[in-house]
Amino acid sequence: MNPDPDYSAAYVELLTSDGEAGEGLVFTIGRGNDVQCAAIEALAGHVVGRDVDALLSGLGNFSRELVGDSQLRWLGPEKGVMHMAIGAVVNAAWDLRARREGKPLWLLLAELAPEQIVDLVDFRYLSDALTRDEALEILRRAEPGKSERIAALQADGVPAYTTTPGWLGYSDEKLIRLLREARDEGFDMVKLKVGADVEDDARRMRIARETMGEGYPIAMDANQRWDVADAVAWLERLAPYDPAWIEEPTSPDDVLAHAAIRRAIAPLRVATGEQMQNRIIAKQLLQAGALDVLQLDASRVGGVNENIAILLLAAKFDIPVCPHAGGVGLCELVQHYAFFDAAAVAGPRSDRYIEYVHHLHEHFEDPVVIDQGSYAAPTNPGSGARMHERSVQEHRFPQGDVWKDLSDADAS
Amino acid sequence: MNPDPDYSAAYVELLTSDGEAGEGLVFTIGRGNDVQCAAIEALAGHVVGRDVDALLSGLGNFSRELVGDSQLRWLGPEKGVMHMAIGAVVNAAWDLRARREGKPLWLLLAELAPEQIVDLVDFRYLSDALTRDEALEILRRAEPGKSERIAALQADGVPAYTTTPGWLGYSDEKLIRLLREARDEGFDMVKLKVGADVEDDARRMRIARETMGEGYPIAMDANQRWDVADAVAWLERLAPYDPAWIEEPTSPDDVLAHAAIRRAIAPLRVATGEQMQNRIIAKQLLQAGALDVLQLDASRVGGVNENIAILLLAAKFDIPVCPHAGGVGLCELVQHYAFFDAAAVAGPRSDRYIEYVHHLHEHFEDPVVIDQGSYAAPTNPGSGARMHERSVQEHRFPQGDVWKDLSDADAS
Repeated sequence: MNPDPDYSAAYVELLTSDGEAGEGLVFTIGRGNDVQCAAIEALAGHVVGRDVDALLSGLGNFSRELVGDSQLRWLGPEKGVMHMAIGAVVNAAWDLRARREGKPLWLLLAELAPEQIVDLVDFRYLSDALTRDEALEILRRAEPGKSERIAALQADGVPAYTTTPGWLGYSDEKLIRLLREARDEGFDMVKLKVGADVEDDARRMRIARETMGEGYPIAMDANQRWDVADAVAWLERLAPYDPAWIEEPTSPDDVLAHAAIRRAIAPLRVATGEQMQNRIIAKQLLQAGALDVLQLDASRVGGVNENIAILLLAAKFDIPVCPHAGGVGLCELVQHYAFFDAAAVAGPRSDRYIEYVHHLHEHFEDPVVIDQGSYAAPTNPGSGARMHERSVQEHRFPQGDVWKDLSDADAS
Repeated sequence: MNPDPDYSAAYVELLTSDGEAGEGLVFTIGRGNDVQCAAIEALAGHVVGRDVDALLSGLGNFSRELVGDSQLRWLGPEKGVMHMAIGAVVNAAWDLRARREGKPLWLLLAELAPEQIVDLVDFRYLSDALTRDEALEILRRAEPGKSERIAALQADGVPAYTTTPGWLGYSDEKLIRLLREARDEGFDMVKLKVGADVEDDARRMRIARETMGEGYPIAMDANQRWDVADAVAWLERLAPYDPAWIEEPTSPDDVLAHAAIRRAIAPLRVATGEQMQNRIIAKQLLQAGALDVLQLDASRVGGVNENIAILLLAAKFDIPVCPHAGGVGLCELVQHYAFFDAAAVAGPRSDRYIEYVHHLHEHFEDPVVIDQGSYAAPTNPGSGARMHERSVQEHRFPQGDVWKDLSDADAS
């Protein structure tokens, strides 16, 4: 579905008059980044000149203010470019707050009182599935033992799975080598891209199953390739290889199609969520019984506040959240949601994984740490979004050295 | 929901080397227009320098090419700012083609063969509700008598309803006066905005019912104000005034909530669609039994091609399409869908209305003609999007005279 994966990011920095900074980003592809930047610029009036203390102590209101801007809301509402821009700005404010408080974002969130957490959430359009009181109850249930859970997370981390071996187009030899490396690195699960050719997929799944052995979880990702009937036929062919789940079998907007596919292919599990536009689609996916695994993303919905709503919804419906990662900086960002979820929302569960991809970590000041196949708990202050100044300068479009080098290469 | 309704439009002109022009537009509000323009500019590479004949003879492929641009698709997919930009460019190409062929858009579409029409549609993600073959069957069923229907539409038009009397904040006297004027102008239906205060709404509905008499259709529009329970309670209070429908009771993304509300308030009808992001949400609204009236918009989804898909879906489910209008130029644009639908898709039906609002028509070269409460069939070539050159120049932001005058007024 993405033939021109020219990984990019729209990078937001909130700078205070005291010289502090908070960062957020939206993962984009190529020319899409220009549109994303224009959407972020449209939000400047909500931020520039604001009192920092007041803004950071009222991030529920700040999020609602941005989402509610009626001139920008018309462009959605609450979806696509404009909503992702809001997410990046909201996340940059959270990054700044976490740095000020000297805590990693997940721990800052986990240590808030249940009442403070629900105040961050916009329950509009959610109350038929989750009320403020129900959310409070979920959070209060998680209060006992929270500090022990935090300590356990700091000791053991959260399991990761890796998509690194699974891209389409690798030779069978490379697939086998990367699968073995993934297991040697301690990953308890891998994921293969599927959907281009069913017989090719069957061969790759067979090889993966033979390489990893019976019982080792091997997930599959179709990246929205199919209509309902195609999905069902394709998955009947692949089911014998005992996949752990099928991810994004169809359009991320199609709640009813996901539900129909899930009913048809049970017990094979359905995962989705990386391009889920907002909490309203999340709610419906859960209400309709359309998924077994919810894969929230850090740069798709309206930021930390909306992702808290999504975590609460998933907890209400007892569905595990396995964040989507990859792209630019998504591993660094999404890990905080899984740690917060485990500490203070859904609590421990054996089916929680964070996706991991081995690329682009070198550009981040506080790159993720994978230890024996698990994400180590972030310990440094912030949300993980801050890039090295040099990476930002070199990759800035179009004036960065990386682009100049490419354009010299084109010219020669 | 829209406290700062600073009506704007992103206006697209496709200019050929022969001096022809095709126009399209996206209705926006205020600062949102800057973001919309950036999204449209990101599409320039798909248009500039193209062979005009080839492009216009393959508008199905052109639409698929724009929607499928993987760098831009990531920003949606198929929703929000980027999708509306695609719609404006696709619509401008249709405007150019209709001008070349010397036909109003609706007639151009109506005179295509069923096979040509289905070739325009992207059935991806639709096949669980509507296949290409089923769409062909719908269109072929409408072939007999088509020329007679076209003649009848040219003679009689399509009924309009007006929202002009129904805005919030009017005095009761003004409401009564505007209601009487609407009836005197021949409108067979009016619509009132509701949702700010239930007792105020009840009083206004009572006045409207008393003014217009029993049996006169009075619709209501809640502009996304409610969650499910609020909607049901509010509508129980208003049902005694026998409203014709309730429009947008909740989030446009919430298929399941619309369905729940509809079940709870039957036989009161539910209308929605003006902010429906794409054909995939349209499909689900129909599959879930979430609406009685589908209100497509001309500048929300991906243009003419996707709106043809939506008309076909509505015909499959036997739901009337009553296009949304108002804003900037929407009356001029959406009328073409209703005429095309009546001529070549769903055929005649007594429950088809086109919304009408009395403003901003003076800026368009080919303004709608309302005759005794009905839209007269457009007769001039094109899609209705072209504005007077003087209107464009005066309103261009920020250099147009209108903006200079506002800024002088601010300064004085």
